[in-house]
Amino acid sequence: MKRVGILNSGGDCSGLNAVIASAVKTGHALGYELVGFLKGWEGILDPMMYRALTPESVRGISHLGGTILGTVNHGRFGAKQGAGDSRRIPAEILKAAADNLKKIEIDGLIVIGGDGTLSGAVQLQEHGVKIVGVPKTIDNDLMLTARTFGFSTAVQVVVDALDRIHTTATSHERVIFVETMGRHTGWIAFRAGLAGGAHAILVPEFEFKVADLVEFLRQRQAMYRSSVIVVAEGARVGASEVYQKAEAEREIKLGGIGNHLMNMVEAMAPGEFEMRNTVLGHIQRGGTPTAADRVVAKAYGCEAMKAYHRGEYGTVVAYVNQHMVTVPIEACTGALKEVTSDSLEYVTARDLGVFVH
Amino acid sequence: MKRVGILNSGGDCSGLNAVIASAVKTGHALGYELVGFLKGWEGILDPMMYRALTPESVRGISHLGGTILGTVNHGRFGAKQGAGDSRRIPAEILKAAADNLKKIEIDGLIVIGGDGTLSGAVQLQEHGVKIVGVPKTIDNDLMLTARTFGFSTAVQVVVDALDRIHTTATSHERVIFVETMGRHTGWIAFRAGLAGGAHAILVPEFEFKVADLVEFLRQRQAMYRSSVIVVAEGARVGASEVYQKAEAEREIKLGGIGNHLMNMVEAMAPGEFEMRNTVLGHIQRGGTPTAADRVVAKAYGCEAMKAYHRGEYGTVVAYVNQHMVTVPIEACTGALKEVTSDSLEYVTARDLGVFVH
Amino acid sequence: MKRVGILNSGGDCSGLNAVIASAVKTGHALGYELVGFLKGWEGILDPMMYRALTPESVRGISHLGGTILGTVNHGRFGAKQGAGDSRRIPAEILKAAADNLKKIEIDGLIVIGGDGTLSGAVQLQEHGVKIVGVPKTIDNDLMLTARTFGFSTAVQVVVDALDRIHTTATSHERVIFVETMGRHTGWIAFRAGLAGGAHAILVPEFEFKVADLVEFLRQRQAMYRSSVIVVAEGARVGASEVYQKAEAEREIKLGGIGNHLMNMVEAMAPGEFEMRNTVLGHIQRGGTPTAADRVVAKAYGCEAMKAYHRGEYGTVVAYVNQHMVTVPIEACTGALKEVTSDSLEYVTARDLGVFVH
Amino acid sequence: MKRVGILNSGGDCSGLNAVIASAVKTGHALGYELVGFLKGWEGILDPMMYRALTPESVRGISHLGGTILGTVNHGRFGAKQGAGDSRRIPAEILKAAADNLKKIEIDGLIVIGGDGTLSGAVQLQEHGVKIVGVPKTIDNDLMLTARTFGFSTAVQVVVDALDRIHTTATSHERVIFVETMGRHTGWIAFRAGLAGGAHAILVPEFEFKVADLVEFLRQRQAMYRSSVIVVAEGARVGASEVYQKAEAEREIKLGGIGNHLMNMVEAMAPGEFEMRNTVLGHIQRGGTPTAADRVVAKAYGCEAMKAYHRGEYGTVVAYVNQHMVTVPIEACTGALKEVTSDSLEYVTARDLGVFVH
Repeated sequence: MKRVGILNSGGDCSGLNAVIASAVKTGHALGYELVGFLKGWEGILDPMMYRALTPESVRGISHLGGTILGTVNHGRFGAKQGAGDSRRIPAEILKAAADNLKKIEIDGLIVIGGDGTLSGAVQLQEHGVKIVGVPKTIDNDLMLTARTFGFSTAVQVVVDALDRIHTTATSHERVIFVETMGRHTGWIAFRAGLAGGAHAILVPEFEFKVADLVEFLRQRQAMYRSSVIVVAEGARVGASEVYQKAEAEREIKLGGIGNHLMNMVEAMAPGEFEMRNTVLGHIQRGGTPTAADRVVAKAYGCEAMKAYHRGEYGTVVAYVNQHMVTVPIEACTGALKEVTSDSLEYVTARDLGVFVH
Repeated sequence: MKRVGILNSGGDCSGLNAVIASAVKTGHALGYELVGFLKGWEGILDPMMYRALTPESVRGISHLGGTILGTVNHGRFGAKQGAGDSRRIPAEILKAAADNLKKIEIDGLIVIGGDGTLSGAVQLQEHGVKIVGVPKTIDNDLMLTARTFGFSTAVQVVVDALDRIHTTATSHERVIFVETMGRHTGWIAFRAGLAGGAHAILVPEFEFKVADLVEFLRQRQAMYRSSVIVVAEGARVGASEVYQKAEAEREIKLGGIGNHLMNMVEAMAPGEFEMRNTVLGHIQRGGTPTAADRVVAKAYGCEAMKAYHRGEYGTVVAYVNQHMVTVPIEACTGALKEVTSDSLEYVTARDLGVFVH
Repeated sequence: MKRVGILNSGGDCSGLNAVIASAVKTGHALGYELVGFLKGWEGILDPMMYRALTPESVRGISHLGGTILGTVNHGRFGAKQGAGDSRRIPAEILKAAADNLKKIEIDGLIVIGGDGTLSGAVQLQEHGVKIVGVPKTIDNDLMLTARTFGFSTAVQVVVDALDRIHTTATSHERVIFVETMGRHTGWIAFRAGLAGGAHAILVPEFEFKVADLVEFLRQRQAMYRSSVIVVAEGARVGASEVYQKAEAEREIKLGGIGNHLMNMVEAMAPGEFEMRNTVLGHIQRGGTPTAADRVVAKAYGCEAMKAYHRGEYGTVVAYVNQHMVTVPIEACTGALKEVTSDSLEYVTARDLGVFVH
Repeated sequence: MKRVGILNSGGDCSGLNAVIASAVKTGHALGYELVGFLKGWEGILDPMMYRALTPESVRGISHLGGTILGTVNHGRFGAKQGAGDSRRIPAEILKAAADNLKKIEIDGLIVIGGDGTLSGAVQLQEHGVKIVGVPKTIDNDLMLTARTFGFSTAVQVVVDALDRIHTTATSHERVIFVETMGRHTGWIAFRAGLAGGAHAILVPEFEFKVADLVEFLRQRQAMYRSSVIVVAEGARVGASEVYQKAEAEREIKLGGIGNHLMNMVEAMAPGEFEMRNTVLGHIQRGGTPTAADRVVAKAYGCEAMKAYHRGEYGTVVAYVNQHMVTVPIEACTGALKEVTSDSLEYVTARDLGVFVH
């Protein structure tokens, strides 16, 4: 009986356990023995950390947040951000990992992770390890798949928060900034902002002028008296308005981009608006997944195991047009899928009068 | 300024208010005056019932369940079920409606509804009324659109219920039947069952044998001690097992299909299982929509109004491959999109060992 | 090190796991070894079924519904309903249980259960078993404690359902009956009905006339067009209106009291109202407990173990005036706390114009 | 027909609309005409801002967050914090308000507010205005009432967040700080922390040493690998550890107390823990109230109006031992009810091994 290892790496997101459980159940039915490596790539380095995964041991975990395998954001493997050579993992580390896997007779790996993790997987393959990948990004910003797990849950958590915040904004006639995840792309902010009735949505893809936002808020507050602004953490103020870059960066680092924007608005329009800022933070990551995330996570887990069984090593599973397909891992790393001005969310928000840049 | 009327008809579902609000805001921005007809088609017959719809009057309604326009399941218009001539609305009714609209200078209608409602729309067009349709079916079973609003919410409500019911099933080592909506198609049952970890999913599309279900339950209860079975209201027992059709139909009518199945299982395996039945009923229809339903509902409302503005009368808006398109109304009525054995939900459930027929 | 057993019996309700986990953690800190008996009293009969309970084994279970010990509604112990001698468990069963406990050196028991379970505990004590009880009733109808766990969760589940159902009732101008738990007392129905804006609340404590309800509905529908009626499963129609008792009972047994009332209203006012019925059923029992239920469940578990440590055998823990006290077990069985016309919920509902009888 | 005014002032919290709606319905039934003053006390100053409140105009608002009357945290009336003379509102303001009320023939007021608002009410009474108060504090820290509305909702929101955060803490083996409301008292933090399984709960009432917390975390992380710490915004580090008060205050002001503690822990134990901080902020205030908050809010609204009708001016309604009573307004201002070491929450948390100071 062949042994297949499962590991996940990088930040946690809702649905990981459902992927793991589905891969285990499917793999077991296909005649594999499954083991789970703990704490991402660390689990296959010295000392190896792993546990047997049986259908019984993964029963009843699919609706739980987090990951039973644990995870890390850093480590000896794939820690580097960036592109090209800067992402090379030292050959001796890769070799040690490959040797370790051989030692415990692992036939190959199901690797669940984002851009960085999958880049590591590509390199480990070069040392003879068979790999099928499952894309993981809470930001839903991979080019080759319509939907990743964890995203729907993050959006729903933000919308639930917005529903609560609207009532306070209205009652107090305030402008409230709500900061969401999204360092490089603004899908969470855009979908949640649209669904949750935000009046402005600020994302990394569309540079904006604070002066324009101030003008928008003046008109809006005069008419409607309250405003809710969703800001992705990577939202960008246009260069022309940033006089003291270092100072701005320090302020963002300490209090977040929402807080920084609030200060900029106050500086441009002193005393005009009663403003508040809220940073949603980690509640977007964890907890029980939405129905949609559970479905897609289970489908990823099943399909990854079946792709492995079919011998499609070097691929990741992708959700395309409501079906699961496999694509080369390399196709899944690198460029991000950004919010564009012809995406449904952008078009709808703009038609509804939302300030988008 | 042209006046456009908005109406919805048939059963309510989450997201209706978001469609209405978006259509009104978009229409207003495009220079239209909007009115809402009350209680479906009844609102355009004698006595006409309608109210002005302004951006102000639809503020803050998008996250509320139900419809501010009211709705009916029956009426003088489109009441008949069936196909072909049986669905013809008497010409004098259609003419009266068209005349009424002229009387109050309505340029045309945005009609939100399902198969029956849109069939009425087709007939009203023949009397010179300009119409753009928005598809509405909580069952997500229209051929030409990937997603209708209300469906995601219904699925989430069922999954929330399943999460609660699992703990009771496990604690008491019971077999619990959970009946969901889905008279003709099983999408709600299938997606919710898969997401919610159901052990059997029974839908109209796949006839099954109760004897097979009993055998499945015997094996499952021996190993795992508890089972949760999701049954769409239209699930069908194979003809070979139904001895007394009239009796069976009466029982289903009174207590639902889940109750009927429970009785059949008990008859085949007396005393073997401790069983319970629960009918989720109307909680699947109403209440605040999920983030996903709000996004899609808003997109439908915007796009319908823009299609009207572009003069694409006689079409319905459809959500295809993450974009909004328009298709002829006729293409949207008639055949239903059924759960097939190559749909992702079916394949995943089967791979995970769920009893599907 | 003394061994203390924990068992729960009867229907499950939210918070059981929190009680168990707290008792285990507290007991462990006080120097006890804990074991959990499975499936209620059955676990201490032949064959005994139990497992060790350590702080580690109960980590992370407090927010999960159900009970890790399993439970049954019936069995060889305390199965009988009723009063006085009819509740006597045969002496040989009690003796066998007491002997079993001695065999595995159990010092005594923490027993979590309702009226029937605690009545069994009283009898087992007579055979020399030390017992401290924790009251369990989802209906919150014990005389000597202000709040039992599971009740807050059940009420919240009903209110969430009512929020959804209101939007359907309003959109369709319907009268919707919602059946809740509450065979003997109406606390769930009353609190949930009041919180959820029900227009009529029907509970076992207050017999009512269907004719009065019809009259109320006539006035209400004329003015407001929609009505939501919360009915506890044990709600009672006054004797004067029940002509065919056997028929009525059969109808209630099949379709529930809400369905029966709907039929009675239809018979008295044919075609006047568009009515629907929904039975909430098992979703009220299971699933993650509310914050309030978790707090009270944890307090019960801690206090039970501390009472055991203080040697207060023969008592149950009770929550009185925001503190935990102990009272004799006997004081907790027998009479139920009913909704009275001077309770805050009744008074408030009546002041707000809710039909209560 | 006598006119009674309703106003609320200070920060919004869940349940305000339920109080207003109940007061209006009850008042209407008792024969009063009701008006609502907007934006707290500002509404009775120049220019007066008010609207008629009828049973129809408050239909369907009880489950909505915020307040239909709007509110402010500041203003010409009662703006001052503090005690004694510092809280005196200038006599000319009070007189102007009283004269305004006479001008529009207001018989008296129902005033919903916290300590500051009720202190204003006491002073306005001296100018001949009849007042009945309803206590409002999201912190549930009034001496004379067991439960205020909004508190249960805030606690539930925190617990929902903790459920999500636990899964991330566990998956990443982190120490996560979660900051809740509670500047002067720690009820929200304590109840939510206990319910949500926090491992440390830090509140204003119990000064603690960061060095002790570090020691606790060392032991905990060694055994369990993850920790969740709930910190009320007013939590206090013991004076002996604060070397640079001004610096500490600035840091708390910018990033919150949780962030500050994280930095202190890092300074004492560099690199030992992977830590994160999250500030829940405004989501605790707004949004739909829990069932418990709706019940208590409705009871407050009804009882306030009935107390007014009985002529019990100068009182506030209080919820004591599950009944509504009235107490002199003065008794409700001033001292706060703090978390004490014999409160059920404290005792239970300590028994369960939670770090409380």
